[in-house]
Amino acid sequence: MDVYLHDIPLQDARDRFQTGLKKAGLDGVLGVEEIPLDEGALGRVLAEPIWAEISSPHYHASAMDGFAVRSQDTIGALETAPKTLAYQDQALYVDTGDPIPEWANSVIPIENVEPVDDDGEMAEVVRKPSAIRIRSAVSPWSNVRPMGEDMVATQLVIPAGQVLRPVDLGAIAGCGHHRVSVSRKPRVAILPTGTELVPVGEPVEEGEIIEYNSIVMAAQIRAWGGKADRSSIIPDRYQTIKDQVLKAARDHDLILVNAGSSAGSEDYTAQVVEDLGRLLVHGVAVRPGHPVVIGFIPAEKGEVPIIGVPGYPVSTALTGEIFVEPLLARWLGRSPRDPQEIEATLTRKMTSPAGDDDYVRVAVGKVGNRTLAAPLARGSGVITSLVRADGIVVVPSGSQGYPSGEKVNVRLYRSPDEIEKTIFAVGSHDISLDILAQFLTRYDRRLASANVGSLGGLMALKRGEAHLAGAHLLDPESGEYNLPYIREHLPDRALRVITLVGRTQGLFVRPGNPKSIQGIRDLVREDVTFINRQRGSGTRLLLEYRLKEERIDPEDVRGFNQEEFTHLTAAAAVASGRVDCALGIKAASEALDLDFIPLDHERYDLIIPLEFAESDLIKPVFRLLNDPIFRETVKARPGYDVSKMGEVVEEIS
Amino acid sequence: MDVYLHDIPLQDARDRFQTGLKKAGLDGVLGVEEIPLDEGALGRVLAEPIWAEISSPHYHASAMDGFAVRSQDTIGALETAPKTLAYQDQALYVDTGDPIPEWANSVIPIENVEPVDDDGEMAEVVRKPSAIRIRSAVSPWSNVRPMGEDMVATQLVIPAGQVLRPVDLGAIAGCGHHRVSVSRKPRVAILPTGTELVPVGEPVEEGEIIEYNSIVMAAQIRAWGGKADRSSIIPDRYQTIKDQVLKAARDHDLILVNAGSSAGSEDYTAQVVEDLGRLLVHGVAVRPGHPVVIGFIPAEKGEVPIIGVPGYPVSTALTGEIFVEPLLARWLGRSPRDPQEIEATLTRKMTSPAGDDDYVRVAVGKVGNRTLAAPLARGSGVITSLVRADGIVVVPSGSQGYPSGEKVNVRLYRSPDEIEKTIFAVGSHDISLDILAQFLTRYDRRLASANVGSLGGLMALKRGEAHLAGAHLLDPESGEYNLPYIREHLPDRALRVITLVGRTQGLFVRPGNPKSIQGIRDLVREDVTFINRQRGSGTRLLLEYRLKEERIDPEDVRGFNQEEFTHLTAAAAVASGRVDCALGIKAASEALDLDFIPLDHERYDLIIPLEFAESDLIKPVFRLLNDPIFRETVKARPGYDVSKMGEVVEEIS
Repeated sequence: MDVYLHDIPLQDARDRFQTGLKKAGLDGVLGVEEIPLDEGALGRVLAEPIWAEISSPHYHASAMDGFAVRSQDTIGALETAPKTLAYQDQALYVDTGDPIPEWANSVIPIENVEPVDDDGEMAEVVRKPSAIRIRSAVSPWSNVRPMGEDMVATQLVIPAGQVLRPVDLGAIAGCGHHRVSVSRKPRVAILPTGTELVPVGEPVEEGEIIEYNSIVMAAQIRAWGGKADRSSIIPDRYQTIKDQVLKAARDHDLILVNAGSSAGSEDYTAQVVEDLGRLLVHGVAVRPGHPVVIGFIPAEKGEVPIIGVPGYPVSTALTGEIFVEPLLARWLGRSPRDPQEIEATLTRKMTSPAGDDDYVRVAVGKVGNRTLAAPLARGSGVITSLVRADGIVVVPSGSQGYPSGEKVNVRLYRSPDEIEKTIFAVGSHDISLDILAQFLTRYDRRLASANVGSLGGLMALKRGEAHLAGAHLLDPESGEYNLPYIREHLPDRALRVITLVGRTQGLFVRPGNPKSIQGIRDLVREDVTFINRQRGSGTRLLLEYRLKEERIDPEDVRGFNQEEFTHLTAAAAVASGRVDCALGIKAASEALDLDFIPLDHERYDLIIPLEFAESDLIKPVFRLLNDPIFRETVKARPGYDVSKMGEVVEEIS
Repeated sequence: MDVYLHDIPLQDARDRFQTGLKKAGLDGVLGVEEIPLDEGALGRVLAEPIWAEISSPHYHASAMDGFAVRSQDTIGALETAPKTLAYQDQALYVDTGDPIPEWANSVIPIENVEPVDDDGEMAEVVRKPSAIRIRSAVSPWSNVRPMGEDMVATQLVIPAGQVLRPVDLGAIAGCGHHRVSVSRKPRVAILPTGTELVPVGEPVEEGEIIEYNSIVMAAQIRAWGGKADRSSIIPDRYQTIKDQVLKAARDHDLILVNAGSSAGSEDYTAQVVEDLGRLLVHGVAVRPGHPVVIGFIPAEKGEVPIIGVPGYPVSTALTGEIFVEPLLARWLGRSPRDPQEIEATLTRKMTSPAGDDDYVRVAVGKVGNRTLAAPLARGSGVITSLVRADGIVVVPSGSQGYPSGEKVNVRLYRSPDEIEKTIFAVGSHDISLDILAQFLTRYDRRLASANVGSLGGLMALKRGEAHLAGAHLLDPESGEYNLPYIREHLPDRALRVITLVGRTQGLFVRPGNPKSIQGIRDLVREDVTFINRQRGSGTRLLLEYRLKEERIDPEDVRGFNQEEFTHLTAAAAVASGRVDCALGIKAASEALDLDFIPLDHERYDLIIPLEFAESDLIKPVFRLLNDPIFRETVKARPGYDVSKMGEVVEEIS
């Protein structure tokens, strides 16, 4: 099935969609429903403005417990010359909220009144004395909530389009309504297609993919105020997809077909739309997500828009944000979501194809006075890049990207407040940083860690782009860890070097060690392939140190120039059979059920500039290094030694 | 029932509550439940961290539709010297997402390949040719998503405490989970008490109050992640309240008793708590809301915290924010909500009792480069002050407030983005501004209007504290509207004066005109009481003009010095019988079913500095002045004339 795929600019796609919606009469609120005014109305969108039916208060109400009086009767009362007002005719007890009598225009609080009995003595029965004695005058309308103080009948209380909040519900009830007209929830059909898909919870074989895009889309629809129906997985068959689309069109306002939106051999969405209705867009110059299909399907009730959503998970989620959220906003009559933007400095170069609007996920942190944006993984298959993203930088078509250090606008996924609570850790990765991240949430801190290797961490500290760096840099001359590198690269910096963990480094091999690898010397064998860690990583330095010790030329190691960025991905390369062997920590090896040949015990330190070490932001890190539960949790990982955790190796001030 | 009420500082109250919670073992997550991983998990709080069960992808997957090859087989292929790879052994067709064969390490996209048949001719069957011809080499792992590219088994994917978003659900599913452990929702009992309360939807008599606080509280609980049970209204009887509290304690985690938390004659909450369990706090030095009760009730399952929530609606809502939200956050294991703060300049003096933490509601707008905070109504009965509030300024105990022009921190209820879309209108009130506010929402604008009278609006423009002002200022000398005042007060300002409406002003009298009021001369009658509008209002100027015309001394008008701030509240004063007569517009009179004696036809203009008149923010205002539907809507109001709407009276540049 060959369907023409031609990327058009994002704005053109939006315009075509908008024109199509208008033609179909679908560019406004879909419908209105009246619902009871209770907590169920929370988050619904008001379809009609609320005009006050009654005033609030709807009578003159006492604002205090006390006695209602005529203010003119109190004129002349003084501390030294009290006045006495007769109960019933001149003074009447009222509780807070009670109406004041027609003849009254003020309330004297009970504590400012002396109730007296018939003899003029202090009365026992406070609320029904014979009279009251007062020692100062009150002005008219004191301690009275006049009718309409809060709302006056006929005034506008809440405009239509408001997403109802708790206090809105109170105000609506308070001005006499007991039902509200809200926009009906758009019904969205989500059709996951793909013969290779397996539902969540079922065993997954090689070549199969866990189908979770429909959950992401359904949750998006729900968060944006719609109602989602997920169908079961539809195999890649033209006729089946067509039948399901037709069925969905009957009772839905929007159809989302996930995957199959490109022009590959099993991509049927565009063809189905073309055959059933109008195909408006096939391909949008936006990354990730360009093979988007937009069209309309006829149904009995009128045309139904259909979007072919590309199948890579990041593309799926972003297509939702770009096309579906604004549509739901329009159908609900609310403002579209408009993320807060902040300016941040790029920590790395960001390249982008010039023809596309490119949505780059970034981690955002505030280090000292600088707000920094660190680009995350670009692959549209990497959903964790969205999970970890604090925001998006849109590189517009026409731009080929930005250099490192450039100021860019970030559309935030988190509040600036959360960004302020983010500890930016750049450097070598260690699983204890994951555990630290978990424990830090208890202290209302987030740990955003970028894995750039130990040396990269020192460089980030040097550039002022991290709060702390994790490093395990072995100096080949002195055999000392980290300090020689710090002296070289951060000579004038006041900082604290504190040990996080000791860990065992060694070789990962497949279970049973099929190639009988015994040590570093086996890496030169012709039948042994290796995968290295990236330049600047402590593990690579360790390898180079050991190769030098053994006088092995790195070029003799097959795979020396292949790089992985973490212990776990290196272990995964061995586990999958991609290579025979890699160097890394024992914990990663055990996590993937590999065999492990121990080589070294190394020290992993945290390096923290003093300005941050003494900040409130970082304090919880030090507290955790002495927290027995944190220590035990780390110690439980294979090859980990916490005996030196929290020891200050050196403090340079 | 006299219970001691003694305000303690807010921090002390929080500390006592916290100590009590700790003692009761209630200072952490209440419980964990496992739920299916679908869109129902949206917004739930992750109780345990998600570590990857499997890697994603869990095999080496092709990232393109194309042919899997060994990269070493492609070395040497050139445009001018193609290489041919045999199908099956050296090249195999793969769709996007398919696993690549064990022997392969790269994928060549289908568009870069020439499929050939046995004779070396271009093959018809693209996917199963005899061989493929390629014209360039590929490097290893090109167009392949290596196993673990997204997530590697055992890594931390999402820390506990995360409020689950759509993409989080995808990542959790993608790394092999089909259920998630989330914090169980705290169950909160809401007990509205008060003999004077009437449920929403039932007719309400004088002295009765519509019970809506329980709806506000239930919606708050829901928004914050809990489950609320609202009881029906409980009368003010000690024993009934006690029984209901005991009953609620059985199956709830928290009890909120609304109203009755003070020390008045019908306030039983503190006594009930004291008699049943431990009373920790009775009175907190916070405004609004000081009569707060905090204690614990014993139940079979352990102690249950109980909060006596004061009954004024603003107090109710703020007590929820101050005490309940942080408690639910703790019980759910998430971060407490922490509103974004911005700095703003006070437009008016803000006074505050020195002993209390005072939560003052403010409207926030950005006028030119200045962010302004305008204090709203202070009364704790005025729920619309919370509806209209863009944020809160907390005046801490110890401070007696701030002068006008002071920079204050505002805790925002809205995003800064919404603030940027807010048109700040200060001046005379007119119902067409309410209608304008409603229509502006379609243009994604908010109209925040402060009613300070026509002259007050000009002064606000002068101080740069408004985008526009509405005015109907009659000059007694020239009989001209607005322009003389603008020349006097804004002599050097470039601005546009544009007519909004013409309106009929006249006297409001009760239906049937029981006092036979015929015109302005009747205001001096001894049996006629009047209520005036505030100084600087156009309506007051009109009155003074007419009194002067009739040579009446204002002091002879009973009520000349009594002030109301809007037409509608002035009309309400007549409707309620508080006064016999007031001056105002016909629409307000008809809204409250009053009789109306027409006196004048006046012009109501909008005055807009040119710098704003030409801004994108204000543009929709001009568009609406020419929108037939807007014009018709305004015209439908009694006494309104739109024939001059949108006419530029003068443009001064």
